[in-house]
Amino acid sequence: MTAVIDKLNWRYATKKFDDAKKLDDATLERILEAVRLAPTSSGLQPFEILVVKNPELRAKIREVGWNQSQITEASHLLVFAAWDNITPERIDFMFDLTNEVRGFVNEGWEAYRKQLQGIVAARGDAANFDAAARQAYIALGVALVAAAFEGVDATPMEGFDPAAVDQILSLKERNLRSVVILPLGYRQPEGDWLVDLKKVRRPRDKFISEI
Amino acid sequence: MTAVIDKLNWRYATKKFDDAKKLDDATLERILEAVRLAPTSSGLQPFEILVVKNPELRAKIREVGWNQSQITEASHLLVFAAWDNITPERIDFMFDLTNEVRGFVNEGWEAYRKQLQGIVAARGDAANFDAAARQAYIALGVALVAAAFEGVDATPMEGFDPAAVDQILSLKERNLRSVVILPLGYRQPEGDWLVDLKKVRRPRDKFISEI
Repeated sequence: MTAVIDKLNWRYATKKFDDAKKLDDATLERILEAVRLAPTSSGLQPFEILVVKNPELRAKIREVGWNQSQITEASHLLVFAAWDNITPERIDFMFDLTNEVRGFVNEGWEAYRKQLQGIVAARGDAANFDAAARQAYIALGVALVAAAFEGVDATPMEGFDPAAVDQILSLKERNLRSVVILPLGYRQPEGDWLVDLKKVRRPRDKFISEI
Repeated sequence: MTAVIDKLNWRYATKKFDDAKKLDDATLERILEAVRLAPTSSGLQPFEILVVKNPELRAKIREVGWNQSQITEASHLLVFAAWDNITPERIDFMFDLTNEVRGFVNEGWEAYRKQLQGIVAARGDAANFDAAARQAYIALGVALVAAAFEGVDATPMEGFDPAAVDQILSLKERNLRSVVILPLGYRQPEGDWLVDLKKVRRPRDKFISEI
C-alpha cells in the first residue's frame, strides 16, 4: 500500500458536505498549486480554474446542476473551464512565456511552435475545444489526489448544463467553456448514503491487459 | 510544500529514458492499481489500459508516433484506450458489478441506471466516445502522480496516429480506441535536453480566478 493508493481508497464522491466546515486559504492554495503544476499537451494549459465563492452564483449553478446539494454546501466550488478554441495568440503566449522563463530562444522549440500552429489551425475549432477539455481532466485527476492528501473531500461533477453555467459565470466573454466542476470541502458522514458503501472498480483482469 | 507539489515539481516530460533500467513488477503494479482506483463519471471506468511489452509492437507504434524514442526506450509503455462507444451492456456490467460488490440492490441506484441508459442512448456514438476519452485523462493525471511518488518517470504522449495504433494493437476488435500513451521508466539525464530546463506554467493570476 502506497500513500497514493491509500488516499485514493480514502476518497469517494462525497454526497453530503458539512456546510459549517471550510477549507482554510492555505489548504485551498496548495490544491490549486497542484492543479497549476499538472502537465498538459505541449505545455499549453488550455483551461482555467474558477473558484466560485459568491453564494448567489453557486445557487444558480445548483439550479442547472440537477439540484445537487454539494454545489452549494461544499466549502468551495471549482469550475474547470477549457479554452473554447486554441488560437494562435494563446499558443504564442505559452511559447513566449517559455522563452522568457528559460531565458533563451531555442531553434527546435521555435520549429515546434510553427508545427503546432499548423496542426491546430488545420484541426478546427470543435476538435481544438475537445483537445483542450481532455487536458482539463488531467488537472482534475491531479486535483483529486492533491485534495485527498489534504484530507479534503471532492466530488467531480459532469451533471450540469455547461451552456447555462457558462452564462452564469460569463465564460463566453472569456472564450472559455465549463467542462467539469469540483466541490471541495469536508464530508458529513451521517447524512451521506455513499460514505459507508464499498468502492467498486472493475477487477484488474477486466481493466488491464498485457500484450 | 506538500508531497504532491514536490512530486509534481520533480516530474517532467522525460525525453530520454535509460533503456537498461526497468521497473520491477511490484512498482508497475502499484502504479496500475492507482490508475484502476481513479474515479470516473458514474463509476463506468470507460477505458482500458494496455501494457505493451512486445518489442516489435512497440517499434511499430514508434513508427506511427513521430519516431519518438521514449516509445521503445522506456521500461514500459501504457496505452490508454477509451471505449469506442458506451453501450447498454457496458453500463449494465458496471451497475450489476456494483450491486454484487455491495451486496444489495438499491432502488435509487436502479433508477439512475435507467436514467443513464437514456442519456447515453440519446447522446450518440461520437459524443459517448468523447466522454469516455475524457475519463481516461483523469486516470492519466492519477498515473502521473502515482509514478512520481514511485520515482518513476513518465511522458504523456498524444503525438501518434490513433487509428494506426488501434490497428497495431487490434483495438477495434475490442471496441476500444487509443487516446493517449504513457512510457514509464527512468530518465537518462545526460541525454535529455529538457531535464535541466525550468518548468513553465502560467502564473496563478492568469490561470486561477475568484468570482
